[in-house]
Amino acid sequence: MRVLGVDPGLTRCGVGVVDGVAGRPLTMLGVGVVRTPADAELGQRLVAVEQGIERWLDEHRPECVAVERVFSQHNVRTVMGTAQASAVAMLCAARRGIPVALHTPSEVKAAVTGSGRADKAQVGAMITRLLRLDAPPKPADAADALALAICHIWRAPAQNRLQQAVALHTAQATASKGRTA
Amino acid sequence: MRVLGVDPGLTRCGVGVVDGVAGRPLTMLGVGVVRTPADAELGQRLVAVEQGIERWLDEHRPECVAVERVFSQHNVRTVMGTAQASAVAMLCAARRGIPVALHTPSEVKAAVTGSGRADKAQVGAMITRLLRLDAPPKPADAADALALAICHIWRAPAQNRLQQAVALHTAQATASKGRTA
Repeated sequence: MRVLGVDPGLTRCGVGVVDGVAGRPLTMLGVGVVRTPADAELGQRLVAVEQGIERWLDEHRPECVAVERVFSQHNVRTVMGTAQASAVAMLCAARRGIPVALHTPSEVKAAVTGSGRADKAQVGAMITRLLRLDAPPKPADAADALALAICHIWRAPAQNRLQQAVALHTAQATASKGRTA
Repeated sequence: MRVLGVDPGLTRCGVGVVDGVAGRPLTMLGVGVVRTPADAELGQRLVAVEQGIERWLDEHRPECVAVERVFSQHNVRTVMGTAQASAVAMLCAARRGIPVALHTPSEVKAAVTGSGRADKAQVGAMITRLLRLDAPPKPADAADALALAICHIWRAPAQNRLQQAVALHTAQATASKGRTA
């Protein structure tokens, strides 16, 4: 499975592509940052984020896009930009029919380090080890994007089984309703 | 000046087009709501908002898009959807090179009713009068979109004068710096 991880942001939007399946060594296919100038108009910055994400989708053709789930309890000013950048990333993927998955920061940290409260250095160290890199990817947004992609590759099998179970249950419930009606 | 007002939302995104200039009677060219199903996936909902906004831009070719400025002190769940829908509206406009203006809810209320704390009924009543309609536009999101467009038509001349003054001041400061350097 090839996954594009996106750590959304207006000033720096981390992007990283990882290929692999749970239980096997993973491969990094690319990592980078989509930047937009802080003094540009908001609409123009969103267009720049869209163009950046589109380039990554064109080049790597991921099967899934994993985006960090944004919460609004954080810094008020930052969170709006993060929500808007994440909307653009989700839009780009959904427009192409690519499934979008959202993972919280603590799910991502727990997936790659074993602890939902790990710090940036710990996440960077694990990314370096898991992807067999020479040094931690920089900036931190780029490392976080790779962590999101890895988190999704590892969590996806369990999530898919859960979704299939729910779908099966719903189908059975509908069928039994049909019989009693 | 022809302005598309957008009251952003994922479930209901109000849209309204108003033509006119400050100090002259205004004309409503269209009003409506872009809806997306609450049970659809977030990415799909953003695609539906994009398609809806694109249709309004295609049909009415506005010279400016006025979007409600989103604050995050409101309901946490709602505000994320609002921020994401507003990002899509701004993206659609900026991609076409159409200027985007943001106005706060109290600026909009103050513009059309004279009070920044006016209620929905008061805004609806004034929209009805200013656009010479038979009844207040429904739902409230549609009326709010028209109010945004009117607010922008009335505020734009002052904003433009302010921007020109700032630009002139900056140019003069740069020029005098150049002389003393």
